[in-house]
Formats: sequence, structure tokens, C-alpha cells
Amino acid sequence: MRLAELSERSGVSTATIKYYLREGLLPAGRQINATTAEYDEEHLRRLRLVRAMIQVGRVPVAKVRDVLGHVDDDSLPRTIRLGAALWALPQVPEPDEDDEYVQAAHLEVDKLLDQLGWENAKQLITISPAYRSLVVAVAAFRRIGYTFGAELLAPYAELMYRTAVLDLDNMEAYPSEAERIEFAILGVILNEPVKQALHRLAQEEETARRYGFE
Amino acid sequence: MRLAELSERSGVSTATIKYYLREGLLPAGRQINATTAEYDEEHLRRLRLVRAMIQVGRVPVAKVRDVLGHVDDDSLPRTIRLGAALWALPQVPEPDEDDEYVQAAHLEVDKLLDQLGWENAKQLITISPAYRSLVVAVAAFRRIGYTFGAELLAPYAELMYRTAVLDLDNMEAYPSEAERIEFAILGVILNEPVKQALHRLAQEEETARRYGFE
Repeated sequence: MRLAELSERSGVSTATIKYYLREGLLPAGRQINATTAEYDEEHLRRLRLVRAMIQVGRVPVAKVRDVLGHVDDDSLPRTIRLGAALWALPQVPEPDEDDEYVQAAHLEVDKLLDQLGWENAKQLITISPAYRSLVVAVAAFRRIGYTFGAELLAPYAELMYRTAVLDLDNMEAYPSEAERIEFAILGVILNEPVKQALHRLAQEEETARRYGFE
Repeated sequence: MRLAELSERSGVSTATIKYYLREGLLPAGRQINATTAEYDEEHLRRLRLVRAMIQVGRVPVAKVRDVLGHVDDDSLPRTIRLGAALWALPQVPEPDEDDEYVQAAHLEVDKLLDQLGWENAKQLITISPAYRSLVVAVAAFRRIGYTFGAELLAPYAELMYRTAVLDLDNMEAYPSEAERIEFAILGVILNEPVKQALHRLAQEEETARRYGFE
């Protein structure tokens, strides 16, 4: 298809597509002559992914380029390619390791991972932003006087683990590796708002079931 | 306790406490003489809550006042008092009801609520920001060519429902109504980062279990 059709089908303006091409977020089309290039379904899919990251996920252009670089590098292990989007999202600041609450939170989270038997997650703690986020959140609770300990966290972690199994099952249902990796990225960017909204709706439902509207 | 002790025990400076008092976020202490007031454990708890909302949740002062107004109004139904924090959080913009993707997303989410039998949540759809957020997120998926339909959403919703049951069970373990409502608010502000981090950690764990690090 030509640029005009790519624009039509993706809903992205030709000016924006040209910008993405210049920035290297979209591979060049097949040049037919000096002024015309031809694009295919893969361009369309990549364009949708880029738009999702930039417009819905508000991921900066440089980060998008970085994520796509990981996604397209098939010399990397799959776990790392799939994790690229997660690691490119806005992250919490590094916790202050001298802070007593941060230190206590580390102990608590490590205890949790042991209890759960999450051996792989344990191997990743030095590089994982998810681990860091959890430590920061648990430390924030402690700082205002609440202990959110391993016993309280474990049942939540088990439910989140079942959620992650669903995520990966849904991803594996896609026929091609390119689509699977794309779905994983979209999952991180768009899925989290879906789950958060479902969780809040479920809280409304259960609160009203228990206490009614009186 | 005096102001200095309240500051010491809460870790909030006396200048900030005075600011919260002026802004009506903290009830006045019991006046002992013209220059000295006495504060109690309830002041300390309320102060921690205010600090959690402002410093961790980044809730604007006017919103904090609004949430506390709902929390303290015992003429309101419990479901509404507990929901006050949820409704005071930053919300997604109103969806554009003329947009075809938004209309399709409404149909899909309504179908989901029917399938799940969430009758209470259905009653709240005209006022619920959670419902609106879900519609906006589902519409965003549709706009880039992904159908995130009721069948795909239902198993996630069931897990989130079980998470909400845990939330309310944990809340009900607190002895006083004041603490329960405080926990519900903290739950919204601090719990969501905890659950999101646990979910991401679970994704790392499951991805590595399935695909290893090779």
C-alpha cells in the first residue's frame, strides 16, 4: 500500500508517519521510484504499536526507539525481549538504601519471594524495576506506620501470579512471534489501566454487596 | 501531646502541621491556654493519612479536604464514604460519547457486567469513574485494532474480584470504623502501586519460567 492508504488504515496522519520514519520508529517502505514507497501489513502493525506507545502510553520517542531495538533484536533471550517494554516504562526513583524503612522493606519483599518460591524473580532483583517499585511502595506504607508484611502480601501475589499466567496464555494465542511480542508491549501499556479499572469496579461491587447503598 | 511531640511522632514538621490545621485538614487540638493546644492519637492518625494522600498519593490539598469531608460525614452510606477516596483520585477524562470506539466499548463493558452478575456495579455506571476508565481503556484498544471483549476480560475481572474481597477482608480486620475508613483510603493510594508491582514481578517470574534466560 502507499503512504496515503497506510495513513487511512492506521488513522495516523501522513505527516506523523513521515516523522516516525525519520525517527527510525518505522522501517522504510520498499522504494518503487524516487518519490513513492510501498508499505505492507507489518508496517501497519508496527505503526499501531508505535502509536499505542506514544499516544496512549505517553512513552517518549527515544524510549520507543529503545524498546523497538530490544524487540527487534532476536539475539536477545525471549524473556528480555518481552521485558523490554516493562523496563522502558516510567520507573519509580531508586530507593534510598540508607533509609531504615527501605531496608526493612527489602527484608520483607525478599521474605515474600522466598515464601512464594519465585526463584526467577529473585534472580532479577538487582535489575528489576518491578522489585524496586514494590520495595518503594512497602517502605512508603512503613514510613506512615503500616506494616504491609509478607503474610499480607502473599495472597495478593498469588492472585497477581494467576493474572500473569492469563497474560502469557493470551499472548501465546497469537500466531506469529512478531504479534506475540507486540501484544506483550501493548499488554504493559494498555492492559494495566484495564486491570486497574476492573479492580476498582470489583471494589465498588463488593463494597455495595457488603454494605448496600443505605 | 503537644505540637512538638505530634511532629516528632509523625515525622511531619510543625510548620506543615500548622499549615494542615489552617487548611482544615486536621481538626484543631484541645486549647489548654492561649498559646498551647493538646493533641491525641486521633490527630496523629489523621495526620498520617493526610501526609499519605499529599506526599505519597500527590492528591491536591483541596481534594484531600473533599475526601475527608466525605469520610467524616456519617450521614452518608458506608459504600459512599469508602468510595470517596476512589472518586477523589485523578480520573480519566470523560469519554467522547460520539466516538464509535467508545460506543462499542460501552456495549462490551455492559455485556461483561451482565456476564459477571455485577448488579451493584451496574447501578453505579452513571457516576463511577472506574466504569468510565474501563470504557476508555477498552476503546483505546479497539482504536488500534484490538478487540478486548467481554470473553477476554471476564477471567481478569474474576481475579480482580477476588483481590477486592481480600481488600475488604483486610479492612474489616481493623477494630474501629475510623481506622477501617482510613485503611480504605490508604488502600486506594498506596495499595495500587503495591499490586501493580506484584503483577509485574509475577510477569517476570512466569516469563522466565516459560522461556528461561537463554
